[in-house]
Amino acid sequence: MKYRFAFKRYNSREESIYGTILTLGNGHIGIRGELELEPTIYGTTIAGVYDYAPYFYREIVNAPRIIGIQAFFNGEPVSPSTQKILKYERELDIENALLKTSLLLEMHSGARVDYESVRIVHGRRKNVVILKFSIRASEDGILTIISPIKTDVANPSYREEILIKHVKVEKLEALEDCIHAEVRTLDGRYRIGIASSLVSHGDVKRSFFKNDEGIGDILTINVKKDRTYHFVKYIVLTSSEDEDAVKELLEIREIGFDKLLKEHSDHWKEIWKIAKIEIEGDEKAEKGLNFSLFHLIQSAPVDDKISLTARGIHGFGYRGHVFWDTDIYALPFFMAVFPQKARNMLKYRYNNLNQARENAKQNGYKGAQFPWESADDGYEATPRLVPLDMLGKDFVEIYTGEEEHHITADVAYAMELYYRFTGDEEFMSKYGVEVIFETARFWASRVKYKEGKGYVIERVIGPDEYHEHVNNSFFTNLMAKYNLLLALKYFRKARENGGEWLKSLERVHVTQEEAEKWLEIAENIYIPRQINGVFEEFDGYFDLEDYRVDPKGLGENRLPRRVKENLKATQLIKQADVIATQYLLKERFDMNSIKKNFDYYILRTTHASSLSMPTYAITAARIGYEDLAYDYFMKCAYIDLHNLYGNTQDGFHLATAGGLWQILFSGFCGIESDGSSIKISPRLPKMWKSVRLKFLFRGALLSLEIKNDEVKVKVLDGGDVMIEVFGKSKLCSPNSCVAFFKEESKEE
Amino acid sequence: MKYRFAFKRYNSREESIYGTILTLGNGHIGIRGELELEPTIYGTTIAGVYDYAPYFYREIVNAPRIIGIQAFFNGEPVSPSTQKILKYERELDIENALLKTSLLLEMHSGARVDYESVRIVHGRRKNVVILKFSIRASEDGILTIISPIKTDVANPSYREEILIKHVKVEKLEALEDCIHAEVRTLDGRYRIGIASSLVSHGDVKRSFFKNDEGIGDILTINVKKDRTYHFVKYIVLTSSEDEDAVKELLEIREIGFDKLLKEHSDHWKEIWKIAKIEIEGDEKAEKGLNFSLFHLIQSAPVDDKISLTARGIHGFGYRGHVFWDTDIYALPFFMAVFPQKARNMLKYRYNNLNQARENAKQNGYKGAQFPWESADDGYEATPRLVPLDMLGKDFVEIYTGEEEHHITADVAYAMELYYRFTGDEEFMSKYGVEVIFETARFWASRVKYKEGKGYVIERVIGPDEYHEHVNNSFFTNLMAKYNLLLALKYFRKARENGGEWLKSLERVHVTQEEAEKWLEIAENIYIPRQINGVFEEFDGYFDLEDYRVDPKGLGENRLPRRVKENLKATQLIKQADVIATQYLLKERFDMNSIKKNFDYYILRTTHASSLSMPTYAITAARIGYEDLAYDYFMKCAYIDLHNLYGNTQDGFHLATAGGLWQILFSGFCGIESDGSSIKISPRLPKMWKSVRLKFLFRGALLSLEIKNDEVKVKVLDGGDVMIEVFGKSKLCSPNSCVAFFKEESKEE
Repeated sequence: MKYRFAFKRYNSREESIYGTILTLGNGHIGIRGELELEPTIYGTTIAGVYDYAPYFYREIVNAPRIIGIQAFFNGEPVSPSTQKILKYERELDIENALLKTSLLLEMHSGARVDYESVRIVHGRRKNVVILKFSIRASEDGILTIISPIKTDVANPSYREEILIKHVKVEKLEALEDCIHAEVRTLDGRYRIGIASSLVSHGDVKRSFFKNDEGIGDILTINVKKDRTYHFVKYIVLTSSEDEDAVKELLEIREIGFDKLLKEHSDHWKEIWKIAKIEIEGDEKAEKGLNFSLFHLIQSAPVDDKISLTARGIHGFGYRGHVFWDTDIYALPFFMAVFPQKARNMLKYRYNNLNQARENAKQNGYKGAQFPWESADDGYEATPRLVPLDMLGKDFVEIYTGEEEHHITADVAYAMELYYRFTGDEEFMSKYGVEVIFETARFWASRVKYKEGKGYVIERVIGPDEYHEHVNNSFFTNLMAKYNLLLALKYFRKARENGGEWLKSLERVHVTQEEAEKWLEIAENIYIPRQINGVFEEFDGYFDLEDYRVDPKGLGENRLPRRVKENLKATQLIKQADVIATQYLLKERFDMNSIKKNFDYYILRTTHASSLSMPTYAITAARIGYEDLAYDYFMKCAYIDLHNLYGNTQDGFHLATAGGLWQILFSGFCGIESDGSSIKISPRLPKMWKSVRLKFLFRGALLSLEIKNDEVKVKVLDGGDVMIEVFGKSKLCSPNSCVAFFKEESKEE
Repeated sequence: MKYRFAFKRYNSREESIYGTILTLGNGHIGIRGELELEPTIYGTTIAGVYDYAPYFYREIVNAPRIIGIQAFFNGEPVSPSTQKILKYERELDIENALLKTSLLLEMHSGARVDYESVRIVHGRRKNVVILKFSIRASEDGILTIISPIKTDVANPSYREEILIKHVKVEKLEALEDCIHAEVRTLDGRYRIGIASSLVSHGDVKRSFFKNDEGIGDILTINVKKDRTYHFVKYIVLTSSEDEDAVKELLEIREIGFDKLLKEHSDHWKEIWKIAKIEIEGDEKAEKGLNFSLFHLIQSAPVDDKISLTARGIHGFGYRGHVFWDTDIYALPFFMAVFPQKARNMLKYRYNNLNQARENAKQNGYKGAQFPWESADDGYEATPRLVPLDMLGKDFVEIYTGEEEHHITADVAYAMELYYRFTGDEEFMSKYGVEVIFETARFWASRVKYKEGKGYVIERVIGPDEYHEHVNNSFFTNLMAKYNLLLALKYFRKARENGGEWLKSLERVHVTQEEAEKWLEIAENIYIPRQINGVFEEFDGYFDLEDYRVDPKGLGENRLPRRVKENLKATQLIKQADVIATQYLLKERFDMNSIKKNFDYYILRTTHASSLSMPTYAITAARIGYEDLAYDYFMKCAYIDLHNLYGNTQDGFHLATAGGLWQILFSGFCGIESDGSSIKISPRLPKMWKSVRLKFLFRGALLSLEIKNDEVKVKVLDGGDVMIEVFGKSKLCSPNSCVAFFKEESKEE
């Protein structure tokens, strides 16, 4: 039961929160958790299917709703919003990726109707969705099931009252025993084919409807009281021109539900075999953590055409755009647990390198500048303005697209992180270094030389988005420096190693002179002043009004109106910024500096961004602030289950989920790597007896049991790994178990 | 059968055209003609209920759909879009304002289902809509009727894929035997209450549903084969805070369908008693004319909170805005046939005089400047920009709001026309003159003195909207002159008459000096040059490229691309402009001038505006171009029945309907008035033997039979009227019949 999440309350107003929490997906198709028996605006999300939209450039498309059904018993709707609910239970089984529903309704007629269902978004078959359900009534009567493909779906826009229909129907046809719809996005780029078949047994009358809302199967059955009637709705949804939805539907229907379910369960068994994390002594933490990982895993795309988005396949939040959330917050989990997925995400950046080059050029820079928000085509997708009123007279101006330049260094950083951890030389030599060279080139054109200061970077937004148009963001300048030095490193490596490395170098024509310039800039990049060991977030930050908040509070609503309405005039920051720098570039800072900066900034951070707590938590764990680290860990683990940010309905907070894993991995388990070995420094919260987890390091699959005074490591697969724990290094070989003990604790 | 319009083809793609053609309304509520059994985006229009919208300022709200039902026989939808259609017939009976539907469907199961319905939007009870229907199946089975109030309605915006939901649900409740919904427009201004009850007899199981789509009654009946089951859906829709939909519903249900229908039919009998026009010898013309009048009558608001809109209560075309269409094209019909409606329309202008004053001030002028497009609050509602693409990057710029200033004179003109024809001194002295003074004041501030030219009006758009930013539009300058002289006339009258006239004058503080200035400006307003008796439409028009078209063609699609894409560079005009001036101010031009100008401009007019043909037709009739006049008359009469402009789905062309009546009245019957008598100069098309019509002149109800050689007049009610026909004037007294004969024809 540990991995089952049950919800027993029906409230139509909260359905959209459960819609996110109970989403099922396979990286390609996402089906939100809204009850199939009720109408909803949410259709289906398909990773990578976008269309033009006002203000947001391109947004992920709300594709036709395929999971919905309508049931009528003796003409009355089998619907909890309408009938008296005697029992209502929905259960998400994350081990098997199943969503089960169990209802008992009392109809107005007095009859009772039992409804049970289970749905899957097939793990191995990216186009397959299945809803199996059964109905039993307490009286004889007529049961009607309508099983539609609802094509009149629309995305809510900048106001929920404004809707954008992104698909046009090209075909609706009722075939012999299935229905078939074809729709196309308005921009013409994506054709979505859907075939669906509602299978049942016994004396069933079959019909269909076809109208402006879509097409649907209709089954009518004379049912006997207290007898259970079973149905399976098979659905295939294709999204490329060369796939045939009807053909695939016929194939899977032939295979049948039981075999398909087994495939699906086997798939998830494989996933959890490596991904599951056990926390002895804290079931609540374990549940929340694995719940978050489940949603993170579900959201990782099946290929490199699109990357992991900010809110997953769970909703329309941030329009399905890709942010640094992916490269910095989510990627480490995938890199360590499903490295192929991490590779896809980085490959997506590489695939869009030409667009990043265009972007740089358009903005007057050289090299490649990645867009702050990226959709299916890799162009800048950040809205410049979003209207605040219906008339569109009042706007909020958004500068992140123009100024939040650190994304470009973040992408380069992620390339290096991935390579160091996985050793994927093929990727790095062919793709990664090209990105690193081109992003360094961007920075070299982005900096300006200022007498007495060195190279400055003006008019940016750092991770802390409260302060716009700032000069010399600590985070940005240091990440730019890192990016330049990284490029220099690979310039040298390419010259030495030759092969693919050199080919990449030659492809982008980096000269010795250019590389030397990178070094010169990196060495002379201006770093904002430091007062009493605290780095200034950007030029002039320390001169702003000081205002402090409780580190355990969350968001802006706790602030007095005066402060809230003029945040930019204060030292309040939205999220980890200097601290994020110190986390990402930790080898450059000593503990004393990290602690000093943490102590300063934690009192000035609102955590209004869901990206804030993970970074602070990891650092808190490192510097011994266990309570705070644990508090943040638990908030991150329950961010969506408890709707802490009030916007869970828009999708799952995937950066937080990735960050949560990092708190455990880097923070509590203290796992680090320099690329050649793994170092483990356990600092588990008190109540945690142990953490058991697995990950891959340079092809070797490690299984670890970590306690504060004892660490056991087993290499399950792959080659030898050098492990350092409690000051001791040991070479761990496949299929042998190595244990480390903390000296002090042994002496006790 | 003459007044019944039957349609026997079902095509889901054409439903939106029939939706307009088959609209029923009572001036307050409009219910489009889409079949009740099928889903549609169209809900209900309520005259005067608007809400803020992007680009369009405020737009008429698509209020909840109330007419729709769903029927299922043995679980299969009774729906022509889904089933095999054996019979399909829809009939609009304009005499009784009924829409009847008769269907025979063959279901997939093989059963046949008969469906018959009749709907009314009650003529006397502004909040009442009723759908009566019956169903008969060829087999025993279960019949389910779902009768919803569908609250999830939205307006299509500048693209049909963009939808705006203007109402938020405040309450959905299922009462003992009715359902009740309350919604509010997003701006909070209008609360719409809806109560609905589905009544039937026999052994019916009653239930309901309530969800995100709305609330609905559900009836389930075990039906016997070949037996007919009857239902009545009573609906009350209220739109002000102090009305109680449920209470009114209970009242009307108590009254019952038959009595309500009788009231409704009696109401329309009263209407047609005066409004009907008979054309002996041309049934087609008579049908089309009365059909147009039916839709015009249906659209006239019940009070003066809103005026007649461009496309009526039939659709969302022009966002439900009020244009000069009302004052110039539609008003004359109402003035002559339903003067109280005309008064309401003019009172609407008066009610918004303060907003017109604000508008003038904001634009740097004095007095009152009426907005080119006006909604419920009287502020300028013309969009300034409308996006051409989904991204909103490419816009069409619309200058009519900024430049089409003639509307302000048009309103003053309409006041005078109404007063002259009705003699409504109470209206004119209290309201009309205030508008006339303030609009004159606008023109006095709008003109500029230019040496050698006199007073010029620069940067305007005339009725011909192909040419923007023009100087000295013939139409505009002459209408401004008219407006100024009109004000002067009433200034003198107020001084002489005192009473309300003087109070109005004093309210707006017009001084002798100001009035003298009006005269001075009027006498010196610059009129564009004249070449060979042809007035130049605006300064420089004659210098543009000449391009001619066939007068009997319509629209721009017939033009070569080069011309079509640069219309402003040519002498092509969109609609009657100089000719419209000569029609409105006909006493200022002799026939020779009118003919010369007609001959010139008719070859250069595309008639891309539906306002064009009426004006040309009237003039054509006057100058003896009978064929052309008749051709335009018939096109106007069938503009929507034949969807001549391809946009009938957006609503009825009411200006054309009003213009059609004017072709008959002023053009073919040649009826004119100087305010004291009526002059009739028949010039009926050859095939017309006679026209019989009624109208009110200064309180007297006249009944006329007009032939080309004989005119019979009867005053049915009111006082004596002086009538001049064929050069003879006779005083017609109530209840006596006076006949006039044409000398020549008598001599034949």
